[in-house]
Amino acid sequence: MLKNDLFLRALRRQPCSRTPIWVMRQAGRYLPEYRAVREKTDFLTLCKTPELATEVTIQPVELMGVDAAIIFSDILVINEAMGMDVEIIETKGIRLTPQIRSQADIDRLIVPDIDEKLGYVLDAIRMTKKELDNRVPLIGFSGAAWTLFTYAVEGGGSKNYANAKKMMYREPKMAHMLLSKISTVITEYTLRQIEAGADAIQIFDSWASALSEDDYREFALPYIRETVQAIKTKHPETPVIVFSKDCNTILSDIADTGCDAMGLGWGIDISKARAELKDRVCLQGNMDPTILYGTPERIKAEAAKILKQYGPHTEHSGHVFNLGHGILPDVDPANLKLLVEFVKEESVKYH
Amino acid sequence: MLKNDLFLRALRRQPCSRTPIWVMRQAGRYLPEYRAVREKTDFLTLCKTPELATEVTIQPVELMGVDAAIIFSDILVINEAMGMDVEIIETKGIRLTPQIRSQADIDRLIVPDIDEKLGYVLDAIRMTKKELDNRVPLIGFSGAAWTLFTYAVEGGGSKNYANAKKMMYREPKMAHMLLSKISTVITEYTLRQIEAGADAIQIFDSWASALSEDDYREFALPYIRETVQAIKTKHPETPVIVFSKDCNTILSDIADTGCDAMGLGWGIDISKARAELKDRVCLQGNMDPTILYGTPERIKAEAAKILKQYGPHTEHSGHVFNLGHGILPDVDPANLKLLVEFVKEESVKYH
Repeated sequence: MLKNDLFLRALRRQPCSRTPIWVMRQAGRYLPEYRAVREKTDFLTLCKTPELATEVTIQPVELMGVDAAIIFSDILVINEAMGMDVEIIETKGIRLTPQIRSQADIDRLIVPDIDEKLGYVLDAIRMTKKELDNRVPLIGFSGAAWTLFTYAVEGGGSKNYANAKKMMYREPKMAHMLLSKISTVITEYTLRQIEAGADAIQIFDSWASALSEDDYREFALPYIRETVQAIKTKHPETPVIVFSKDCNTILSDIADTGCDAMGLGWGIDISKARAELKDRVCLQGNMDPTILYGTPERIKAEAAKILKQYGPHTEHSGHVFNLGHGILPDVDPANLKLLVEFVKEESVKYH
Repeated sequence: MLKNDLFLRALRRQPCSRTPIWVMRQAGRYLPEYRAVREKTDFLTLCKTPELATEVTIQPVELMGVDAAIIFSDILVINEAMGMDVEIIETKGIRLTPQIRSQADIDRLIVPDIDEKLGYVLDAIRMTKKELDNRVPLIGFSGAAWTLFTYAVEGGGSKNYANAKKMMYREPKMAHMLLSKISTVITEYTLRQIEAGADAIQIFDSWASALSEDDYREFALPYIRETVQAIKTKHPETPVIVFSKDCNTILSDIADTGCDAMGLGWGIDISKARAELKDRVCLQGNMDPTILYGTPERIKAEAAKILKQYGPHTEHSGHVFNLGHGILPDVDPANLKLLVEFVKEESVKYH
């Protein structure tokens, strides 16, 4: 039994004594303790060494007091497992080879056995669950198909997604074939994470806002829905968070995937999202990460504003406090600690 | 008298026989004719040589048949006129020195005499107006204060606007002082462009979506309003377009600046924007620029969809067809030409 299950209760829209908080990239470079581990090895080796992944996953729980852990990994492990060579140079950039541009390229990608190719993530989840000893829930995660598709086609990050969109707009069937192949892996991967012990799953569609509403409905949402529905069928008790960052004009469509919670970027007042969705889903977010560069007063004022914008909780509401994107590497950890403590205290009055 | 005043009529929400079209960065690298001029000189020298700026400004009118010209220039000419050294390496990046980080830095920036420091833009406008010989209207433009502020503080482009936001969140009064100083120049600059012959003004807030709703209301909109209101007072007949890209959750606030038209990115169905704003303003947009990588059929289908989403025109509606961002340098000019011709034909039935 979890000692602190506030995060899961909020995702399930069950009554909570206060608003839970965790932050994206909470196991990351802003923590000197993370940098100490990271110095010994490269980024992907850290992901692939369960002892080290476990250590950095637990750091923010112990150092910052967050209400959930998220397994230390990267969304691109799926591209690698499918047969692409992935280089991640933290702070510098990402390179995937070969770029996937033709039907032959797509055919060469494999649908891997998860235990064989991504067993290290499952091992890290099992080890972390043991080390956490039920202090807080553990989040598993995956990139969404559209985002992983852009990395596959572009061979890295991209400004305009020119090649990904060329495929979508010139060879839509081929694009769907690649998206579908990636989505199959995502679905199996998230199911296996749950079976290894993950208490919730977050799907990161980091580049979601690059698509128009209709293109997001055609090229992104069906694949997210596929994964959500597979999880809901096999593990109905496991909450799923969909983070389609900055898709603020299609919130209802995202909720229609059947997810339990939706992550929000800071581009929308959370009050508006709640009003539109009418407590159909839990909302996660949505402070601008750069607020953590501010003074303690500014940080507290912003957190208080977001809690107030979400407003009083009812029987079926749910809010998980988070940033609208990952914490930035040069943020003072003291500022995150201050935020976590403030949210824990300030949120009580809304519950 | 203008031979083709459709663009101005649409901005003023007067009846039109069809929907006018121009595209952002239409005078740019996708055109071989532009590259031929550009080869002879560097980017800023091209901006500063009225003969050459006039030549490339007119190219898309003659080659593509667009319904408006936009003076060839760059938003950063204001930063330069205020005393910063600006280097623009097309395709590479932008560097401004010194970075503006302290009160002393702000105090050292000048509020320039526009004729003295930006006279070359006014000369280019006068020359272009003459060369255009009333074929189509000429758009003048400026960056918005928030966007120019980020360039000043960051000293270039930025991923997270860390330094700009540090100033906003740690020293908000100082940030407002810098924004205000920049805004004073913007206002005077746009007025002088109108007096030199510009038929409409567009304010580009390229990095608008980096701010939360409240921060956009505090740090961006008041300065846009200042410029719009100054134009409306001195030159009430000159339409103003505000392009706060991807600020799709605060459309009404943007309309409240008093602008005549609003530019939209492709992240929102134009039908939703029209429904929310109820024809208070003309809408400009909003095709994903990467659609121009698609097949002719895909390009036409997308343009037809946007025209249909905007829907039938009424006595007080207005739509200017455009991309949701600048045309990309590797687009085939034939695809833009096809788009322009298709919009001209297809839009008739909605008027």
